[in-house]
Amino acid sequence: MKTLSWQDAAVRHEFSRLKAMKPFCYGLTNYVTAGLSANVLLAVGAGPAIGSAMDWPSVFGRHAHAVWINAACLMSCGPDEIRAAARAAHEGNVPWVLDPVAVGAGAPDYDAVIRSLLEFKPTAIRGNASELIALAGGNGGGQGVETTLTSDKALPFLEKVAAETGTIAAVSGPIDYITDGTTTISVSGGDARMTQMTGAGCSLGGFIAGMLANAEDRLTAVAAAHAIYSEAAERASGAIGTGSFAVQFLDHLSLLNPAE
Amino acid sequence: MKTLSWQDAAVRHEFSRLKAMKPFCYGLTNYVTAGLSANVLLAVGAGPAIGSAMDWPSVFGRHAHAVWINAACLMSCGPDEIRAAARAAHEGNVPWVLDPVAVGAGAPDYDAVIRSLLEFKPTAIRGNASELIALAGGNGGGQGVETTLTSDKALPFLEKVAAETGTIAAVSGPIDYITDGTTTISVSGGDARMTQMTGAGCSLGGFIAGMLANAEDRLTAVAAAHAIYSEAAERASGAIGTGSFAVQFLDHLSLLNPAE
Amino acid sequence: MKTLSWQDAAVRHEFSRLKAMKPFCYGLTNYVTAGLSANVLLAVGAGPAIGSAMDWPSVFGRHAHAVWINAACLMSCGPDEIRAAARAAHEGNVPWVLDPVAVGAGAPDYDAVIRSLLEFKPTAIRGNASELIALAGGNGGGQGVETTLTSDKALPFLEKVAAETGTIAAVSGPIDYITDGTTTISVSGGDARMTQMTGAGCSLGGFIAGMLANAEDRLTAVAAAHAIYSEAAERASGAIGTGSFAVQFLDHLSLLNPAE
Repeated sequence: MKTLSWQDAAVRHEFSRLKAMKPFCYGLTNYVTAGLSANVLLAVGAGPAIGSAMDWPSVFGRHAHAVWINAACLMSCGPDEIRAAARAAHEGNVPWVLDPVAVGAGAPDYDAVIRSLLEFKPTAIRGNASELIALAGGNGGGQGVETTLTSDKALPFLEKVAAETGTIAAVSGPIDYITDGTTTISVSGGDARMTQMTGAGCSLGGFIAGMLANAEDRLTAVAAAHAIYSEAAERASGAIGTGSFAVQFLDHLSLLNPAE
Repeated sequence: MKTLSWQDAAVRHEFSRLKAMKPFCYGLTNYVTAGLSANVLLAVGAGPAIGSAMDWPSVFGRHAHAVWINAACLMSCGPDEIRAAARAAHEGNVPWVLDPVAVGAGAPDYDAVIRSLLEFKPTAIRGNASELIALAGGNGGGQGVETTLTSDKALPFLEKVAAETGTIAAVSGPIDYITDGTTTISVSGGDARMTQMTGAGCSLGGFIAGMLANAEDRLTAVAAAHAIYSEAAERASGAIGTGSFAVQFLDHLSLLNPAE
Repeated sequence: MKTLSWQDAAVRHEFSRLKAMKPFCYGLTNYVTAGLSANVLLAVGAGPAIGSAMDWPSVFGRHAHAVWINAACLMSCGPDEIRAAARAAHEGNVPWVLDPVAVGAGAPDYDAVIRSLLEFKPTAIRGNASELIALAGGNGGGQGVETTLTSDKALPFLEKVAAETGTIAAVSGPIDYITDGTTTISVSGGDARMTQMTGAGCSLGGFIAGMLANAEDRLTAVAAAHAIYSEAAERASGAIGTGSFAVQFLDHLSLLNPAE
């Protein structure tokens, strides 16, 4: 298995491609973490627009440089809107990221909408261990939006999802794993307080979309997003509590320079 | 009247019970303050999930360790969904908190939905003075989501609400009062800038739910939530403005150690 | 063309009028930036309520001291609700601000709702260059919620919007311009990181509403809101990254004293 970190030139190269493009990234996401997701994309130099307002999903889904769909957006839009955004991205050949928040946590109607999105061939799928295992048909044991398992438990399921759906699959945890079903990359490091900052995972979904907008190599770009998050989290590790950790994480994300 | 503060072992004891359980707390709340509410619960060691996405209210309402319903969630869900969550909690014997945001501020349709939730026997009700007075049938004079009265004015109404509905009722203000209709506890301290941090009250509703999940004594647990908020606010009082006050409040909340 | 800044007594005078009234400001806005908008209004001493919950739009739209409508609120309410709030403000002679987020960015159904609100005579309209140009019938070239043009390009369109609709029109950019169609005021300064803080523009819409609640001169009050933002941004310019910039911006906004 390969490992990647901020030290690798490939990571900084993909990051520089995002910064060169300043991609317009359109997202459907939940309102709990939408603000952080927008701030993450602005911090790295992308231009986010979020939400399902009237005909935004079909228009922005097709005209953005990249799209991300966080399934918990269903708390403020309906199945038709989430599907319209996924369809628009798919038909427009726009790379798009699916974050199947809380899939397998016990809500069958909600889960069915998520599964229906696979028809539109996400470019990448990211989640926590419980979610990726559930998506692959296993018993993920998710509790609400939280995982009850570590990322290594999800690895075989991750490879199954990637192979069966032809997508890049990524799981976050103490170690992150990213795979296209053939090659698997691990990313380590970070800071445990990432799990105490609401939206760390949700905003990573948006950032992955940004990295895919202008990627030279898509698997590397998705892994690079994880490595950049990990680096920013480590640079923020001097924070005294969870509030300032979130602030410093954004600070360091905005300061990370691919040319350094 | 009893008083409680962080110095009391009973407060730290109830807090340690929350930390031991790491409860899954499900909330319906407004999108203005949902991010802060999630961050507050994560800071103290709970696992929040927020929002009404498809069948989440009936599923998570029943399977969570505790539930809170902030009535202003009606800005992104309907009466059926808010009632489904309250019913699920009630039928599943899950402790739940009602925050009747802006009740009595002049919107009769909105108020009627809130009152209809009393059928599902909230474990605790928290709000500001105008809201608690209005809920008890008085003229609370609320202006939007803000109170126009101090908490001591609400005290007789608070006791009436608690006695009539069999709930624990709590009012926030310069001094907080918490009562089960028989015993009343006061909590003082804090920092005036709590009123300039959007969601201070809303997130307290979520925190109270977390404290109820594994409470030894429910009245003490609800009062302890107020005392812990007050302590964290005082420790943040060196902040220079309202922005860093919110950050430092979260920092100190995450650092408060029941064993200290 | 006049210029205004924090140094001008007229700016501080209008700000002191807001602080004297502590206006109740009701807003319909998007969930991405609602939290920041509330915190901005709380920082300056106003009392915000945000969102469309049941009958809030018709009630609070009429009874607030000022109203702002950010069109991207359509991601969590419908055309009927946004129109109810605008109608209530108009019929109640409540000053109200329209922020036509992303108008002209390619979504015709969404754009039509925004244009329909002009019937209710907004007191002020604020946006970025692409939005103001599109609203005036030009080709604004907006990309999602971002402008692709600088504010000076919007100036002739701004004057057209103001003259035709009888409103105060304001455009944000490296230099802000504010006009009633006859007199135009420019505001400079600020910090480039304002564009990397999600909701800088959205929250300015709310703040303008607050400044209009008790304005002595409405054009000056709208320009003053821009000048106060610019001053707070400059005072925050020592921040090391985008995360702490947002925190320090709020800090300085809360500390700005009209009597200084």
